[in-house]
Amino acid sequence: MTRTKTAAKPRKTKAKVTRKLDSKPKNAFYAQSGGVTAVINASACGVIETCRQNRGRIAKVYAGRNGIVGALLEDLVDTGKESSAAIRALRHTPAGAFGSARYKLKKYEDSPAQYERLIEVFKAHDIGYFFYNGGGDSADTCLKVSQLSQKLGYPIQAIHVPKTVDNDLPLTDCCPGFGSVAKYVAVSIREAGFDVASMAKTSTKVFIMEVMGRHAGWIAAAGGIAAQKAGDAPHIILFPEIPFDEQRFCARVKECVTAYGYCAVVVSEGVRNAEGKFLADAGTKDAFGHAQLGGVGPVVAQLVKDRLGYKYHWAVADYLQRAARHIASKVDVEQAYAVGRAAVQLALQGHNAVMPIIQRTSDQPYRWKIGVARLEDVANQEKMLPRDFITADGLHITAKARRYLAPLIKGEDYPPYKDGLPVYVTLKNAPVRRKLSTPFVV
Amino acid sequence: MTRTKTAAKPRKTKAKVTRKLDSKPKNAFYAQSGGVTAVINASACGVIETCRQNRGRIAKVYAGRNGIVGALLEDLVDTGKESSAAIRALRHTPAGAFGSARYKLKKYEDSPAQYERLIEVFKAHDIGYFFYNGGGDSADTCLKVSQLSQKLGYPIQAIHVPKTVDNDLPLTDCCPGFGSVAKYVAVSIREAGFDVASMAKTSTKVFIMEVMGRHAGWIAAAGGIAAQKAGDAPHIILFPEIPFDEQRFCARVKECVTAYGYCAVVVSEGVRNAEGKFLADAGTKDAFGHAQLGGVGPVVAQLVKDRLGYKYHWAVADYLQRAARHIASKVDVEQAYAVGRAAVQLALQGHNAVMPIIQRTSDQPYRWKIGVARLEDVANQEKMLPRDFITADGLHITAKARRYLAPLIKGEDYPPYKDGLPVYVTLKNAPVRRKLSTPFVV
Repeated sequence: MTRTKTAAKPRKTKAKVTRKLDSKPKNAFYAQSGGVTAVINASACGVIETCRQNRGRIAKVYAGRNGIVGALLEDLVDTGKESSAAIRALRHTPAGAFGSARYKLKKYEDSPAQYERLIEVFKAHDIGYFFYNGGGDSADTCLKVSQLSQKLGYPIQAIHVPKTVDNDLPLTDCCPGFGSVAKYVAVSIREAGFDVASMAKTSTKVFIMEVMGRHAGWIAAAGGIAAQKAGDAPHIILFPEIPFDEQRFCARVKECVTAYGYCAVVVSEGVRNAEGKFLADAGTKDAFGHAQLGGVGPVVAQLVKDRLGYKYHWAVADYLQRAARHIASKVDVEQAYAVGRAAVQLALQGHNAVMPIIQRTSDQPYRWKIGVARLEDVANQEKMLPRDFITADGLHITAKARRYLAPLIKGEDYPPYKDGLPVYVTLKNAPVRRKLSTPFVV
Repeated sequence: MTRTKTAAKPRKTKAKVTRKLDSKPKNAFYAQSGGVTAVINASACGVIETCRQNRGRIAKVYAGRNGIVGALLEDLVDTGKESSAAIRALRHTPAGAFGSARYKLKKYEDSPAQYERLIEVFKAHDIGYFFYNGGGDSADTCLKVSQLSQKLGYPIQAIHVPKTVDNDLPLTDCCPGFGSVAKYVAVSIREAGFDVASMAKTSTKVFIMEVMGRHAGWIAAAGGIAAQKAGDAPHIILFPEIPFDEQRFCARVKECVTAYGYCAVVVSEGVRNAEGKFLADAGTKDAFGHAQLGGVGPVVAQLVKDRLGYKYHWAVADYLQRAARHIASKVDVEQAYAVGRAAVQLALQGHNAVMPIIQRTSDQPYRWKIGVARLEDVANQEKMLPRDFITADGLHITAKARRYLAPLIKGEDYPPYKDGLPVYVTLKNAPVRRKLSTPFVV
């Protein structure tokens, strides 16, 4: 894991923008990118509320509809049309209020038209700040936008706001969005464990819960926090980092059923066999060219049935886990808001091509502060689960992992309810009048 | 739906037990049966706390380990060894604290040995009250036990405590356990709907969430509450009561994607095709001989891909939905506790072969009270979702369904948390010393 000492040389990231800081206030652009989370809107809330508190220096906040696609298509939303209550409600609303997109800018050399279009749109709407809320792919997009100043002479400050349930961004201690999915997974496997334990005598003996995490096992690892003493669920965790060893896995399942009467397993969607092939490769790919996975839960469950003959059940949490604002981590919500707020503050301090990060200053009691990292150190990097977070047998988490993970799920931050359902806000998303007549196709 | 007017002739259910009510207090037997729920332990809490408040008339409460199996094997737990704090904590702990079982007594004629064994165990432990907490199958077991008095001359009062996520018991307005799974499903599809809506422009357009409900579509219907205005998720519900019509389904999916940009679907595990075959028949059966289902979510998702070409995601909630105490319905928790409490009160009033039921006295504001039904009217009956709860096109719920369902998910009843995880109790479950040397095999 990247620790805080490696992060941040803020002074060197100050923007070399050509306009003066005391000139007429520019507008800001904010957009959400990649897979959404339970708390990405809390970051949006942090960005927008902080901009509103600095009206003298940032005029309007325009949001891109569907991420960077909104900028390319000049499809902008005027967040100024939203009441402060609506913006405040973003803090407890999951998913992407302005629409998110899986869309990655090409290299400047390969598609200068994209960049010229961005400048055209930014210029038309007097945009001087670019806040991009996403994961590794969008950090790369944000970095490219930040280079418009130098490369094309358009004065803009691009700040990346970290977000990803995958927790795989480098330099930051953790990624907003992860703590809440971690909490969902830990709570869910604890609850399912109680269920299976109580039925195991005459019914299901093995329960498999599939969770997200294509390449890094952070989410699967989080399930491990629920196991606090011997016999607690989950008994086994299958990580993408550890090649699936059928014999070892089956032996451990049998051991658990013998010792505890049942076995609860958390399996990452990204588990691969010894040849590096996903156990559940659906054969399709997403817009970034990543393989679309799904269904490793039933694959592993069937294996248990075939090899050991135990009755099984399986669950695939899929989007439920990353949308589960109802069980969000309070720490996560606070951090998501804080990085949104910090992004604006960094912009106001003159930074460009940076990302606010979470710096942990103490494990217990858990303390953290906001730091800053350079985007060129962040973009296109994946922070894998360290090997020493996984036990020697490859089937559970270590005390070190537990120390890292445990604080991230702390605290509850319940949304308001009406008639038994959480009240999530849907914004008006009033469009900004288009100023360009030139069409653009993404 | 069976309404309250058909329920309860309490006076006729008074037990004709041979002992006097003022004789030396008998012990009580309590056990949990069938699939567990988020609130079955709240009923246990209601039973045990109410017995403790009536120590002069009910001496000890012994719990059967793993349902009726515990009685047959003389595998009893002395709940008297648990602190009042531990018993109180049952109210917020999901699953079955004493173990549950899928085990159905045979007819007396086919297996008199089973019944003789029960009497042997009850006699050995001076048990005069039998509280059995379960669904339709266990109501049948409870009825059989209640007949021991007349058939074999053993004085016992058997009271059934209703519980089932399936909501398919007759006479009671709803079944404890259902309200919480209903809330889980409604909250989850609302959250996933927000997620998919925000990504649909460039990513997943159709999301399928599979929920429980083998024969009755109550749980799937509950998802419908989340859709409060046009365009809200879920857009489609697939019920076991409505034969799956591929063309109609695909046409509606396409309509939704066109109108709203995406489509969120709740599908019941029990959906069948026109020939009556489960869409997801795994070919295996459970201990009651019911087909083991699972995986209709991916089947429907694949269909969407093949017929319409939309990018899809699917989730299978499985045990997570019925174990999700963290998002339990307050109404459900209160009703679960109330039926446990009422069961003891009915016993103390001299009843036998009855079940406390929930009687709705008003939809809005929602009001309910406890009534009583005779077990012979309850056992082995399934209350199906009425056709007029389902829209004419078979793909959503009606206003009438909404009126019935909405109150059942009202209110939150959060468990206590420590370090970000819900604190659920694991009882000591101290065994009662065996008094019988005769072995028995179940």
